[in-house]
Amino acid sequence: MEEKCGWETGPNRVQHETFLKAVLDMLLEKAVFEGTNRKNKLVEWQEPEELKQKMNLAVREEGMTHGELFALMQQVVKYSVKTGHPYFINQLYSGLDVYGLVGQWVTDALNPSVYTYEVAPVFTLMEIEVLSAMASLVGFEQHDGLFSPGGSISNMYGMLLARYRTFPEIKSKGCSELGRLVALTSIDAHYSLKKAAMTLGLGSDNLVLVNTDAVGRMDVNHLKHCIEEEKKKKSTIIMVCATAGTTVLGAYDPVAAIADVCEKEGIWLHVDAAWGGGALISPALRHKIRGIHRADSVTWNPHKLLVAPQQCSVFLTRHPGLLKACNSASAAYLFQKDKFYNTSYDTGDQHLQCGRRADVLKFWAMWKAKGTSGLAQHMERVFSLAEEFAGMVSRRGRGWRLLQIPECTNVCFWYLPPALHDVPAAVLQGTLTTPADHQHFKRVSAVAPRLKERMVREGRMMITYQPLRGRPNFFRLVLQSSQVTSHDLEYFINTIEELAQNSQE
Amino acid sequence: MEEKCGWETGPNRVQHETFLKAVLDMLLEKAVFEGTNRKNKLVEWQEPEELKQKMNLAVREEGMTHGELFALMQQVVKYSVKTGHPYFINQLYSGLDVYGLVGQWVTDALNPSVYTYEVAPVFTLMEIEVLSAMASLVGFEQHDGLFSPGGSISNMYGMLLARYRTFPEIKSKGCSELGRLVALTSIDAHYSLKKAAMTLGLGSDNLVLVNTDAVGRMDVNHLKHCIEEEKKKKSTIIMVCATAGTTVLGAYDPVAAIADVCEKEGIWLHVDAAWGGGALISPALRHKIRGIHRADSVTWNPHKLLVAPQQCSVFLTRHPGLLKACNSASAAYLFQKDKFYNTSYDTGDQHLQCGRRADVLKFWAMWKAKGTSGLAQHMERVFSLAEEFAGMVSRRGRGWRLLQIPECTNVCFWYLPPALHDVPAAVLQGTLTTPADHQHFKRVSAVAPRLKERMVREGRMMITYQPLRGRPNFFRLVLQSSQVTSHDLEYFINTIEELAQNSQE
Repeated sequence: MEEKCGWETGPNRVQHETFLKAVLDMLLEKAVFEGTNRKNKLVEWQEPEELKQKMNLAVREEGMTHGELFALMQQVVKYSVKTGHPYFINQLYSGLDVYGLVGQWVTDALNPSVYTYEVAPVFTLMEIEVLSAMASLVGFEQHDGLFSPGGSISNMYGMLLARYRTFPEIKSKGCSELGRLVALTSIDAHYSLKKAAMTLGLGSDNLVLVNTDAVGRMDVNHLKHCIEEEKKKKSTIIMVCATAGTTVLGAYDPVAAIADVCEKEGIWLHVDAAWGGGALISPALRHKIRGIHRADSVTWNPHKLLVAPQQCSVFLTRHPGLLKACNSASAAYLFQKDKFYNTSYDTGDQHLQCGRRADVLKFWAMWKAKGTSGLAQHMERVFSLAEEFAGMVSRRGRGWRLLQIPECTNVCFWYLPPALHDVPAAVLQGTLTTPADHQHFKRVSAVAPRLKERMVREGRMMITYQPLRGRPNFFRLVLQSSQVTSHDLEYFINTIEELAQNSQE
Repeated sequence: MEEKCGWETGPNRVQHETFLKAVLDMLLEKAVFEGTNRKNKLVEWQEPEELKQKMNLAVREEGMTHGELFALMQQVVKYSVKTGHPYFINQLYSGLDVYGLVGQWVTDALNPSVYTYEVAPVFTLMEIEVLSAMASLVGFEQHDGLFSPGGSISNMYGMLLARYRTFPEIKSKGCSELGRLVALTSIDAHYSLKKAAMTLGLGSDNLVLVNTDAVGRMDVNHLKHCIEEEKKKKSTIIMVCATAGTTVLGAYDPVAAIADVCEKEGIWLHVDAAWGGGALISPALRHKIRGIHRADSVTWNPHKLLVAPQQCSVFLTRHPGLLKACNSASAAYLFQKDKFYNTSYDTGDQHLQCGRRADVLKFWAMWKAKGTSGLAQHMERVFSLAEEFAGMVSRRGRGWRLLQIPECTNVCFWYLPPALHDVPAAVLQGTLTTPADHQHFKRVSAVAPRLKERMVREGRMMITYQPLRGRPNFFRLVLQSSQVTSHDLEYFINTIEELAQNSQE
């Protein structure tokens, strides 16, 4: 380990075996086992400036020894957030899945790029298998699909195909003479729809935001109204995007009713099931996305509810050939037609990417390991944990207020310290009238950031908070890891109360 | 290992330690050491239908045991192309770098998603460090940048920013009233520019292709001519994309001369240095991209010439704040402003992605391990290998024809079996006049696919071939791994001759 790192590519046993084994042992110990152990902190919090002091981040002219590099890797592990820790419930992903991790490690050692069968035979066939199994869960009779670097890009594929279906000539001529193109989604949809509208040149003003009902589902009557308004303006409506599991509230839009509208109007229906799509794998939960088989395209991220490692996002369409028609550029140096094998397996040209990391193996490994039945058990567990936690919050009293009964595994709630126990309900609804209301609103909104700071500084747990449509900051606990237990749910509640006690309101 | 895989998320020692260690041992042995050993095949070739028979790819209702999953992982390794093998010279990436691999493995065990400092403190700071070191090599005095999932997407960021700079209102209003938007690049540019033009709604017809000179560099006079023509048509020119290292020939466009034109005309200059950018790290090679500091934006993929694992692509711009201005959507649930730390470190909103895998650590680990000097030595080695191989080809006679002196590490050549030794030079240039020329052209074009088939079926080496602008199929050997030796270069030549001998022309 005292030997200098070599500058040449390529492993050799003499030079590298000890170093490689030392790093892998350290990873198993510190990141995998200790990093997910409840007894340990989930983060060794440092302010940005402190962390810069503690870590030797700068790259320099001279290299280092294996021992020095090993020490740096230990620091990377030490100061990183343990996203696989049961108390990391901060984001729409969490949990460390052993089979998924193994899939990632194998992918890394093989370092494939999935453009052609020739260079990625196993991964090409594996993608076909997994996409087809997912399309069948969606209910598509025929399909095409791909893995993309995240739900945002998958949603963009949806808009891209929708636009192409309306105007195939856009591929060559662009959209300068097409007039105003419009897409519709709900006000609670993911911000990637807005980014897609910006990127593809529709413009965010032309992403029409449909109202939601009391629990955050798209209001179908308002959707109809918005469509009529756009027709009056002679806009061309290219797509409606329904959300199956909204980001904040976890609401499932009524896909079947939206499909009725789209079918009648001849509008492309995209379903963003990035978050809530996991429900499809369980016969008991599948009903939450009734009608999804009628969508033209679907985004579904196994890296969210199904706990595949980052990233694993799938885009599916029930129109075979359209991805290729829309996106192909037929580069002669990559997609030669005079190859010696069946080049219909060279699927790279449907993508916007050229070189592309294989995101399939990790999820395939999990699916093989657990079976569809095991993945379904996982889903049912996390949905029931969410229900259990919502029950705990509503029964708790003493300042605990559930925002609504969760439809997905997002549990949104306020914790109000004693001084705020009697805050009027209108304040939490965001309907402020009196100066006192405004005062209360401010104080309520300040609670979550203050408690968050304490829990993170102490490395005890991480949970996110945010405001929503006029409501003051609330916590959103998102359940994805089936490692979480009822005891953990109690820990979350107790920790929040304890942090609040030690903090002045 | 005979125990069934668990369906619950999360590792525990009793259940998983043996399995994890077995997989890691197998990976070290089979993928890392044996997979890069010259004595072993680089692929155990199977036709798609055969491979489907041999591998148990289908996902099923029931899960499996750890032993069964382990056996599957062995199969994945066995049937995958060993892209780290010294004889994999098929693509613009190759080689297995130990420090890069370690970086990937650590990233996987930590499974970060880089949207905010809060959840990815180490990776956030590391990105800032590496982007800044790269921007300084480019020569930008100030900069912004990001890691993107590949050069294609990085190039799209370039076009996106260029368009936004011209029409900031596009973000909200879209481009329906902007008239014809045009971008220019050379006919030898990467196909991702065409995809970006399609995706962003310019249309591929409005990506104007500038001629190249004899060795594949953009013809600056023709560029000026094209710009004049577009001005006559009242088009709005949003960008010129120069290429530093073209995909097939490895040509470096004259960036400084192109920058003069762009500066005069006030056009955004993007440099696609995805492939050739590695040269910047070596004082001896940097001159190849003279003038790159004058670009408005740059794509540079360390996963190509610098041998970082897939994917590691960087986009840089010398206009700080523009990425955010162009791409931000300010999602309230993610980019809260009432956080307790300095939220200027929450850089996620500049991206088109939301959740995002950390591609920085692997490259940072390599840079720390080898130092800038080690990376420079690596670059110099692979450039000199290319020179050496080109020399071997030109001196070889007996049917070996170099297409041109390489500017980068792409060595393009024909191998003509004895029956074709006397093929007229015009045929290789693609200037066909007589029926005999056409006949020769066909026969020459058939050589590479035939030899490729044999080398792959026998798992001996992989090298790509393609036609180019009227020329018959030729081989392109691309050097990136500094593990390759002079002896390997001889092996490449001898293997091709040997395969040709055993094959009828």
